[in-house]
Amino acid sequence: MYYLGIDLGGMSIKAGVCDENGKILVKGSVPTVQTPDGDGVVRDMAALCLDVISKAGLTVDDIAYAGVSSPGSADTEAGVIVYACTVSLKFLNYPLAAKLQALTGLKKVIIENDANAAAKGEATVGAAKGYKDSIFITLGTGVGGGIIIDNKVYKGFNCAGGELGHIVIVHGGKQCACGRKGCWEQYASATALMAMAKQAMDADKSSKLWELCPKSDEVKGSDVFKAAGMGDKSAQKVIDEYVSYLACGIVDIINIFQPEVLSIGGGVSNAGDALLKPVIDIVKREQYSRNSDKQTLIKIAALGNDAGIIGSAMLGL
Amino acid sequence: MYYLGIDLGGMSIKAGVCDENGKILVKGSVPTVQTPDGDGVVRDMAALCLDVISKAGLTVDDIAYAGVSSPGSADTEAGVIVYACTVSLKFLNYPLAAKLQALTGLKKVIIENDANAAAKGEATVGAAKGYKDSIFITLGTGVGGGIIIDNKVYKGFNCAGGELGHIVIVHGGKQCACGRKGCWEQYASATALMAMAKQAMDADKSSKLWELCPKSDEVKGSDVFKAAGMGDKSAQKVIDEYVSYLACGIVDIINIFQPEVLSIGGGVSNAGDALLKPVIDIVKREQYSRNSDKQTLIKIAALGNDAGIIGSAMLGL
Repeated sequence: MYYLGIDLGGMSIKAGVCDENGKILVKGSVPTVQTPDGDGVVRDMAALCLDVISKAGLTVDDIAYAGVSSPGSADTEAGVIVYACTVSLKFLNYPLAAKLQALTGLKKVIIENDANAAAKGEATVGAAKGYKDSIFITLGTGVGGGIIIDNKVYKGFNCAGGELGHIVIVHGGKQCACGRKGCWEQYASATALMAMAKQAMDADKSSKLWELCPKSDEVKGSDVFKAAGMGDKSAQKVIDEYVSYLACGIVDIINIFQPEVLSIGGGVSNAGDALLKPVIDIVKREQYSRNSDKQTLIKIAALGNDAGIIGSAMLGL
Repeated sequence: MYYLGIDLGGMSIKAGVCDENGKILVKGSVPTVQTPDGDGVVRDMAALCLDVISKAGLTVDDIAYAGVSSPGSADTEAGVIVYACTVSLKFLNYPLAAKLQALTGLKKVIIENDANAAAKGEATVGAAKGYKDSIFITLGTGVGGGIIIDNKVYKGFNCAGGELGHIVIVHGGKQCACGRKGCWEQYASATALMAMAKQAMDADKSSKLWELCPKSDEVKGSDVFKAAGMGDKSAQKVIDEYVSYLACGIVDIINIFQPEVLSIGGGVSNAGDALLKPVIDIVKREQYSRNSDKQTLIKIAALGNDAGIIGSAMLGL
């Protein structure tokens, strides 16, 4: 049997046919073009699904189910996107599962929040494979989170839980788009890292960051790790500060969940060991049960850019 | 059938015989007197158990099981207190369940962390009765927490999870005994409330707090709520500040778990609506899914001082 994974994002809809090990056989993508009734997205999604299924040499009957990951909150049982609100993608109580089934003939469609789907992907075939309790965080434009307890996505009674980026680590701190002040996302996202780097560059005209990126507005997280690797002190200071905030939230999560694995995805996670090592050092020192002989494994997520497709395809497993 | 609940604390061991509704038929207590091998506590506990069972007109055979709640972390499956360290009570990998069974003839002994047991009590016969996902927090010397998911205590793979008091809400803030800086417990415990009240009294010699308590070192949380009720501005300012920190952590927990119920116990919760109302106002304004039609119920815990006994007695249900 095969599994169809669909990653619905603000910029594009991606879809891939996967086997039971999360291997993508064929994938494709189309731009996200929303229509006022929301049906434009589901029509394009349906056409993309049928296209990748056909390119894989399969028919709809060979697909056990399709998983769809979406921004916002999803009521998986009802097959409904409860609420999604990005610049280009807005849904309110939209019955995506039923509409996609009607347009494609797919037997079953499972809807999930995007970070939750990625968490399920990591837990099933990625960094947390073989563990029943794990947490996934993603460091991108914001900070997303997914909680897996007993091999299942945990998201609370209204499907809106797991908003790990919206725990306050600096009481009264930076304004967050969610309305609170001092959310972790304001300090640990890729966006936050870039803002810290810009500030450091502007304050230090001799920083090697200027060699890597001539405009401080355009500095990327990867530039900071590269410059620090070249011995740049300003870049290293940015990493130290960023890691101190990132590890703060990670220790919080460990003190709450004591998961077997915590995996880190999203753009910043491409820094690999240069990110992981200092984070682990802080966690070892600070976490509440640091003397326990069982410690949470902290790992870079394994599924990379395909996490959305693979995680969605694994939702029913 | 009857259930024996045992609340092991630093000061006393309490035990009570309960029915299936958590009603205590007979209870008793003895002081906690630790011996170097740890066996003094379990001997006194065993004698207390047999005493309350006999006073209830029952025999050990009428008791389905005994639940024991203890500070620190407990491996329930192994029947072991993994680690407990208070001034008067220290255990490291202590097989309490087997020792208590051997001394009493009890059929089964279930060990659990004290806040987790209270959470189970609230979920079974208290404020969260009838709900499958709930969180309990206790505002006392520190801030304790218990997580109930699908009617079961969740505590992670090393039994040390649910340390809700040890999430940082003020990065780089007040030193916590756990080694971190800025833990919620440093701002939302009864201890923190008393420290804030002392500071406010010392700064305002006209405060009505002086009428309620002639020594600022001895001011209690209840004095602050009483003085605020009498119109004292300094006391009201303390409550506003305290509630802002308390609600900060509560919103964090809701954003993560979206539980059906969050119940608040411990000394500070005796303030009732004077505490609950301003907390709920902040949660309504700040929580991530405030537009969802399903909202977490925030309640004062129902079991009060008997939470330890009742929660322990309910552990196997």
